[in-house]
Amino acid sequence: MSVGPLPEDWRAPTLEEVRSAARRIAGRVHRTPVMHCSVLDDALGGEVYFKCENLQRIGAFKARGATNAVLSLPTEAAACGVATHSSGNHGAALAMAARDQGIPSWVVVPDNAPRVKRESVAREGATVVECRPGLANRESALAELVDETGATPIHPYDDDRVIAGQGTAALELMADVPGLRFILAPIGGGGLISGTAIAAKGVAPGIRVVACEPEQADDAYRSFREGRRITLDSPDTIADGLRASIGERNFRIVTALVDDIATVDEDAIVAGMRLLWERLRLVVEPSAAVPVAALLSGRLTLDGARAGVILTGGNVDLDHLPWS
Amino acid sequence: MSVGPLPEDWRAPTLEEVRSAARRIAGRVHRTPVMHCSVLDDALGGEVYFKCENLQRIGAFKARGATNAVLSLPTEAAACGVATHSSGNHGAALAMAARDQGIPSWVVVPDNAPRVKRESVAREGATVVECRPGLANRESALAELVDETGATPIHPYDDDRVIAGQGTAALELMADVPGLRFILAPIGGGGLISGTAIAAKGVAPGIRVVACEPEQADDAYRSFREGRRITLDSPDTIADGLRASIGERNFRIVTALVDDIATVDEDAIVAGMRLLWERLRLVVEPSAAVPVAALLSGRLTLDGARAGVILTGGNVDLDHLPWS
Repeated sequence: MSVGPLPEDWRAPTLEEVRSAARRIAGRVHRTPVMHCSVLDDALGGEVYFKCENLQRIGAFKARGATNAVLSLPTEAAACGVATHSSGNHGAALAMAARDQGIPSWVVVPDNAPRVKRESVAREGATVVECRPGLANRESALAELVDETGATPIHPYDDDRVIAGQGTAALELMADVPGLRFILAPIGGGGLISGTAIAAKGVAPGIRVVACEPEQADDAYRSFREGRRITLDSPDTIADGLRASIGERNFRIVTALVDDIATVDEDAIVAGMRLLWERLRLVVEPSAAVPVAALLSGRLTLDGARAGVILTGGNVDLDHLPWS
Repeated sequence: MSVGPLPEDWRAPTLEEVRSAARRIAGRVHRTPVMHCSVLDDALGGEVYFKCENLQRIGAFKARGATNAVLSLPTEAAACGVATHSSGNHGAALAMAARDQGIPSWVVVPDNAPRVKRESVAREGATVVECRPGLANRESALAELVDETGATPIHPYDDDRVIAGQGTAALELMADVPGLRFILAPIGGGGLISGTAIAAKGVAPGIRVVACEPEQADDAYRSFREGRRITLDSPDTIADGLRASIGERNFRIVTALVDDIATVDEDAIVAGMRLLWERLRLVVEPSAAVPVAALLSGRLTLDGARAGVILTGGNVDLDHLPWS
């Protein structure tokens, strides 16, 4: 979904906006549990607390940002509904948030998207609009339906309301676990890490915020190192939630607030995912395992410190697990 | 593990003993979260709350009974340690409880037990004692090591301290979810359902307590119907936690307090397990899915009522999932 260039006077969302989002979405999304496992502490080299967004509504943190975006719409715009293109968790989250408010939603899905993804969007009550694969086709299909319906397009990550909503997970994590020295989260388009960094640095400026990214989709890492936004065409990683390239406003926030980006290989992601399934007994998707992969592979070390990890989602195809 | 005939003056544990167990084990086992999912409500025909004992220490409710048993030992007996024969969750739970107290433990494991089970017992610090397969060999190996070491044998279910400990999960569930009309739990040897029924009927006599059992290991169902304890030799079910036959004191408690026993076929167990993985994003073992299987297959109907289900455990071999 294209967004225009950032306005001259654009300013990143503030801690207060994340707190407003938290009040807005309270009772509409789950306050997810935080888990801890001493066996994992030993394996990961620190005292690690997991914020279980795989147990969030629709099985992903995306429910937070989408709900905040929908609830932030002016009444008249809301009545016309919302739209996005997404074959992932944002599509289901936006559909869920729209249905909660009794407004329509449209999700553009490429006709080669996995059946399971399309079904989860449809289950949440969206009108699924098929298009040919490819970003250009997706964007033109979305533009066309926005013209026809008057729906408001909601970008999955390059959107201030979405960023503020995603930051609420870190607020809850810090409230539940005092004294965190690190917060780790995966980075794809950068919606989650942006909100996380705003919340974390706002509440505790000394906390280290580390984004974790697959080596095979390392646009954010490269952008961070080179100081300019770099995008990748169709990166290939098992972490399907992290294939998007970092957004404009996300890049600016990451540059300003994130301390480091750690990259991991595909084997480490699979090992991390399996470890979480075995020891936490949680179904997490590959993307959610990327921070644990960074710890397991030594790309990031905690030196025994207390860390919070956001487990981003739990939507996987059980018929195609990476170790089978 | 053989236990002698029940003493003439044996009386089942009371609600007060379950409450004492809860105080005794507080802080030593997790107070596990309760989950709810409206999509599952529709599929299961009621308002269903899941007590997540798969997220308990060692991944199973067995941590409760074993911890209560170990903490109930007189000091001198405790110093000599505890022992059991088990290739399942009770072995790991007893080892964990013993290590917590700094006392030794021995677990007799048949030499054909799965590697993963033996490893989980050893990881918790028990001395693993191998024996030839078969109940007689297991019992004689246990008797021998009890003679040698002075350790106290702790039966996995036919033990009042264990029963009282297992009942604490239902106490927590009822405290967290008011107005339950049903409580459902699987039945194997009957430790969990005994404690559950004592707690539930003690707190709310009108609640219906339903035990759920694989058709292919239906000793409790037959015993319940015929009014006498029937045991089965080596029943074959995917629900490996429910292959044991109902114990003496468990049979008496079930007869007195359980309202019904529902049996389910193997396909329903696999379907229930998969549904829980997909919708709750929880790793649960086949045994834990048996109550959901009873609802899915129509063997048990809630008529829209509010029900609590104890998800008993989450220890599975990820290399051999039943749908792969």
